[in-house]
Amino acid sequence: MEAPYIVIIATGSEITAGRSLDTNSGWMANQLFELGWKVKKFIALPDDPELILSELQTLKKLAESRPVLALMTGGLGPTEDDYTLETVLKLNGKKSFSVEKAKIRLTRVYESRGKQYSDILPTVLRQTFVPEDCKILDNNVGIAVGFVEPIGVDSYLVCMPGVPSEMKEMFTRRLTPELKRIYPRENLVQKTKWLWNIGESLYQKDFIEKYREDLFSDVEWGVTANRGYIKCIFQSTEPKSLEKIIFALESQYPKIISDDVFSYVHEELILRKHTIAVGESCTGGLLGKKLTDSPGSSAYFLGGFLTYSNALKVSLLGVPANVIDEFGAVSRETAEVMAKGIFEKTEADYCISITGIAGPEGGTDIKPVGTVWIGIKTPDGMIQTHSYIFPGNREGIRENASNTALFLLYQSLKQRNV
Amino acid sequence: MEAPYIVIIATGSEITAGRSLDTNSGWMANQLFELGWKVKKFIALPDDPELILSELQTLKKLAESRPVLALMTGGLGPTEDDYTLETVLKLNGKKSFSVEKAKIRLTRVYESRGKQYSDILPTVLRQTFVPEDCKILDNNVGIAVGFVEPIGVDSYLVCMPGVPSEMKEMFTRRLTPELKRIYPRENLVQKTKWLWNIGESLYQKDFIEKYREDLFSDVEWGVTANRGYIKCIFQSTEPKSLEKIIFALESQYPKIISDDVFSYVHEELILRKHTIAVGESCTGGLLGKKLTDSPGSSAYFLGGFLTYSNALKVSLLGVPANVIDEFGAVSRETAEVMAKGIFEKTEADYCISITGIAGPEGGTDIKPVGTVWIGIKTPDGMIQTHSYIFPGNREGIRENASNTALFLLYQSLKQRNV
Repeated sequence: MEAPYIVIIATGSEITAGRSLDTNSGWMANQLFELGWKVKKFIALPDDPELILSELQTLKKLAESRPVLALMTGGLGPTEDDYTLETVLKLNGKKSFSVEKAKIRLTRVYESRGKQYSDILPTVLRQTFVPEDCKILDNNVGIAVGFVEPIGVDSYLVCMPGVPSEMKEMFTRRLTPELKRIYPRENLVQKTKWLWNIGESLYQKDFIEKYREDLFSDVEWGVTANRGYIKCIFQSTEPKSLEKIIFALESQYPKIISDDVFSYVHEELILRKHTIAVGESCTGGLLGKKLTDSPGSSAYFLGGFLTYSNALKVSLLGVPANVIDEFGAVSRETAEVMAKGIFEKTEADYCISITGIAGPEGGTDIKPVGTVWIGIKTPDGMIQTHSYIFPGNREGIRENASNTALFLLYQSLKQRNV
Repeated sequence: MEAPYIVIIATGSEITAGRSLDTNSGWMANQLFELGWKVKKFIALPDDPELILSELQTLKKLAESRPVLALMTGGLGPTEDDYTLETVLKLNGKKSFSVEKAKIRLTRVYESRGKQYSDILPTVLRQTFVPEDCKILDNNVGIAVGFVEPIGVDSYLVCMPGVPSEMKEMFTRRLTPELKRIYPRENLVQKTKWLWNIGESLYQKDFIEKYREDLFSDVEWGVTANRGYIKCIFQSTEPKSLEKIIFALESQYPKIISDDVFSYVHEELILRKHTIAVGESCTGGLLGKKLTDSPGSSAYFLGGFLTYSNALKVSLLGVPANVIDEFGAVSRETAEVMAKGIFEKTEADYCISITGIAGPEGGTDIKPVGTVWIGIKTPDGMIQTHSYIFPGNREGIRENASNTALFLLYQSLKQRNV
């Protein structure tokens, strides 16, 4: 069988009105890629039954000539602007029925709130309905039942809730085994590396162009720009070809290459039983937030200081007022004594300080907006400082600064590992 | 003229592979809505010239029967997977030329880096090319030039860079005046209110259904779920009808209604010259980060404490160890003494403490995952504490907690305003 033409459809007027960001489609595309399928198109439509029906009819038509897999999220909820079921019934001329298991689940939810079956609103009950003769996808997180509906030879329309946690559970546990059963897959392997403070076009010129003939005959490559780093992605059916490329990349960029620093830092700090504390000025808590994104971060993250004002730099971290007066709050000297102060107050193995100008105001000729000093105190007691001029707007500079701080931590952990 | 059928197209394999989130389309839809136009469809396509051309041909075909406005971002960059220009030339059988002004701009950028025109790579230079006889959209932020290309009667394809800062500037300053000139607009007015800790379906039943006949004959409504709150959106050509709805909504939900708390808190704290400091446990810096998202937040945000570990709650904020032993780190008592400790160390007018269980581990029967205590010390010296059991995963609980803390601050500021 030919690989399916895969389309992901997100429904919701909040999406096409720009009030809400569709994160489901990207998540599914990522999962599908790892399973060996590539997505050809994303579509987002408002909660308009005519537009949705017309799109589904187009896909059903396409399914007459090749296998089509359409994955649709949203429109299964309890409000009157949820049209998915009604539209699918019209598409295939079917009737619907209420899934007994989902009805029982819904009743239990109501009972746990001291209510009973008769209290359930009809609009809420509607979420338990699916088309006749479809493949049911149970919802273990919420109420709305998902389903897989045939739309042609080897062609299916999958309908799932728009709530990300419900969709993800349903996709992983219920849908993935079905898809594996139905469709053949490409046996793709993927490798990703991060390069710090380098632009996409320079990378393409210096690396991709240089090795095009030697390395990229059977490897696809991609690159995405992030805050502070680019992700270099390579895909192939040949694991050995990927290994060669990673070796060349590491040889060319030994000082700015990394793996996923977020997961590395998390795992290594736990493994080594090392602790960390922070002192943030311009990032206002963003570094602490990133360090506590992963469950289990309490094993290493002690806490820290948000010294946004100069007064708090002095009173909380013991930065001498004359250091700020003489060198400025954004300086090597301030970053260094901040790191020292964090250590004195927390005794953490790693202490990271950030002080900079996030803008849009506050820049000067000598210290333009984007100037950031980062201090890092390592377990040996040494304090290193690093300065950057990050590009971008306020948000970009703050993201750059906190990501780069994690990269410095990554490098320090790596060095000590060798 | 009929209102145009508006489609927004994002190109980029990183989007359809799920490695990057398309935020441009939503931003544009929002802008267009405010200008009086609704978007019918979002499409995202990989960097595949055949797929892009086929989509554009479909839209050109549609433009034979009605005005079509297609807004496309991405594919104008310097890398070889940028196909937009080439595809548009093929679509309309045109040739391209290099825009003199953009070439001069690019040369200046090179000169500022100590290079000269001859150093510019051909792929970089390609970004200055547009189709013959198009309407040029200057890029004041980056290099790639945008353009408006006719695809039928009153129908246009707009091509803009995918870099958000470049696209936004181009859209606002160059494209918007063009669109206003070309297309008639609906004279829509919009009002938005936030309701805290209430579900969408309950809101629909208790408010929308109740007032359906009285209030919603000439008003469209929408609702989006966020972390801790829902946004209730109303649109109409009749400003008076909107006023009536807002009045009814405020009367029904006096205790949980708010405007945009982020901008209100920012403006009011500046206006009143009040300062704020925070002490965060489970949110790890997220509240501080949110309080410093807006430029100018240094007028009120002093800083604070990330007391993730209990030891730091004791040493930095003076929480008595026996309070933690007796009541737990997640308790009314701890939240209260944390707020007190923040004040003692910072003397801020407002002091907010957050302590909770973000999960997935650490929950008990009495204090399940999601339990969060928030303390708020107001300028009168009083400390209030509030407890919540927030739904969702770790990220959701942390977002809920920090947003709700801002809502408590909003309420306190509002009260003192009356």
